[in-house]
Amino acid sequence: MIPRIALDAMGGDYGPNVIVPAALKMLSEQDKLEIILVGNETVIKPMLSHHSANIIQRLSIRHAGQLVEMDELPSHALRKKKDSSMRVAINLVKQNEADACVSAGNTGALMATARYVLKTLPGIDRPAIISALPNMLGTTTHVLDLGANIDTSSKQLFQFAIMGSVLAQAVDNLENPSIGLLNIGQEEIKGNESVKEAAKLLSSIKEVNYIGFVEGDDIYKGSVDVVVCDGFVGNVALKTTEGVAKMIGYFVKQSFRKNLWTRMTGLIALPIIKSIYHQIDPRQYNGASLLGLRGIVIKSHGSADVLSFTSAIKEAMIEVQKNVPSQISHILETLLNEQRVD
Amino acid sequence: MIPRIALDAMGGDYGPNVIVPAALKMLSEQDKLEIILVGNETVIKPMLSHHSANIIQRLSIRHAGQLVEMDELPSHALRKKKDSSMRVAINLVKQNEADACVSAGNTGALMATARYVLKTLPGIDRPAIISALPNMLGTTTHVLDLGANIDTSSKQLFQFAIMGSVLAQAVDNLENPSIGLLNIGQEEIKGNESVKEAAKLLSSIKEVNYIGFVEGDDIYKGSVDVVVCDGFVGNVALKTTEGVAKMIGYFVKQSFRKNLWTRMTGLIALPIIKSIYHQIDPRQYNGASLLGLRGIVIKSHGSADVLSFTSAIKEAMIEVQKNVPSQISHILETLLNEQRVD
Repeated sequence: MIPRIALDAMGGDYGPNVIVPAALKMLSEQDKLEIILVGNETVIKPMLSHHSANIIQRLSIRHAGQLVEMDELPSHALRKKKDSSMRVAINLVKQNEADACVSAGNTGALMATARYVLKTLPGIDRPAIISALPNMLGTTTHVLDLGANIDTSSKQLFQFAIMGSVLAQAVDNLENPSIGLLNIGQEEIKGNESVKEAAKLLSSIKEVNYIGFVEGDDIYKGSVDVVVCDGFVGNVALKTTEGVAKMIGYFVKQSFRKNLWTRMTGLIALPIIKSIYHQIDPRQYNGASLLGLRGIVIKSHGSADVLSFTSAIKEAMIEVQKNVPSQISHILETLLNEQRVD
Repeated sequence: MIPRIALDAMGGDYGPNVIVPAALKMLSEQDKLEIILVGNETVIKPMLSHHSANIIQRLSIRHAGQLVEMDELPSHALRKKKDSSMRVAINLVKQNEADACVSAGNTGALMATARYVLKTLPGIDRPAIISALPNMLGTTTHVLDLGANIDTSSKQLFQFAIMGSVLAQAVDNLENPSIGLLNIGQEEIKGNESVKEAAKLLSSIKEVNYIGFVEGDDIYKGSVDVVVCDGFVGNVALKTTEGVAKMIGYFVKQSFRKNLWTRMTGLIALPIIKSIYHQIDPRQYNGASLLGLRGIVIKSHGSADVLSFTSAIKEAMIEVQKNVPSQISHILETLLNEQRVD
């Protein structure tokens, strides 16, 4: 089976200027891949000339006349942008013309539209956003929810744990990924009610390998494969991470630019600095999944470059090959049949 | 007025081995400082010999026979450790024999004991933990609450903003520190109810310079002087920061130790790497305040070394000199009198 991936070619900060080259790069690297570029045909078409027949025959364009702005309200996009590249790409998944879609567009609009068009899986109240982050072990830690839900109930956290477990199995080929619930360190006030209750629910099932509470630093220690949390908390953790990494990067640049001596040292150390940066390069980890939908939807960072956007396409391919939504469904069905969740 | 600081000499991972040298160092550097070492006299006394009269005459010992363990439940410490070094140090503040106390002991026990002994200021529901974090501008961002409260109400967030504003004024000599409420980026679900309501409350008063919502990365950008959030969220942000910084530090070490060439490069670059580390060295930022109490209580990191513990003592001195609790009280009284808060 050859994965058919629909790309929202107009989404993100750079639109087709990044997404078309990323599509072409992926098709030249992967024989078993078909891509549908969704967007303004008159813009996209000229960008495809001069490419080999092998690539072009696995690439098609689906015209879409509208565009969701990066700062547009999700409700507005949902009502007024029925012919947007984002909406049409999601429709292709719904109509089974594509196996997955990838967009670098407006996250809120993507979530709202995907939820409206595709609907959630049986047993899932709301979808969640999951992404992989680097850790000290040199592997990745999957964290969800990163901002789709706030004031998450224990039942939702429980559902997130199941979805995260399936994703980590699929993406990292782990047999029984370990799951931790994000909490804070003080024993007596440890956790709010939903975290405490979710811990009880997770301890009662054998379908996921729940190992207990973890703290913010465990994400980067690699203590667990999947960290489950409320979307407000997860989003703050993600943005805080970006902030710390950028600050350190800025201090590094500043320090090596101070004078002639530091500049020369910087030149000598450059390959090492690059190798360090490579280990945490966010472009490698680009491609967050909107989990819990009846279809595969991947969100790329809005400012993704070509390399970065190809990571998001690869994420989509893996989820198609492993059929992540149906695996999630399967576990939830088992639990529902055993009447252990409602 | 000479600040009199009581130190919980037995607290933290290293107890008197760090705290006594830190006290001696501070006394030798600061002429206008008195220190009371609280703890086991037979352990502490021998450590003070061979010091100049100028130092010793400003240093006293208050014996306390018990010790709060680092993993002890706060409720247990509160009931069973009435003669602990921590409790006696806080008592000295209550009895006006000390102007502030500093402890590297168990955070939960310190908070519970301080709250029980000193009580909260009028108009404050619960104390909060605030700490300064480095930012890209080379200044610091004050963040509260870092874990004393979960499920914080809008009224509490409002109180935190006032306390944070007073602290930033005192510590950084800022006239009108800017205050941001920590939130997440998606417009339509922006914030839970308490964050939204707190924003309204803060917009309605002129006593603090509230500038709106901020995100996790703003802590490190230095976009605002004070970031206000729920303790669960703040604790996750803090621990996540530690995790990211440690991971990057680990990758740096690893990369420079790879082979002879990288080791030599490391030697050349060492002064620069040290200068970068210095900018984010957590020891400089040691000393979190328990704000909202009728007295000054500073929490040092449990694993603090001598340099790090002196930072916490300095924090206490500044808060004494600026009389932070009475400044907080003053603002709250004004607001209470104007019946704008209840």
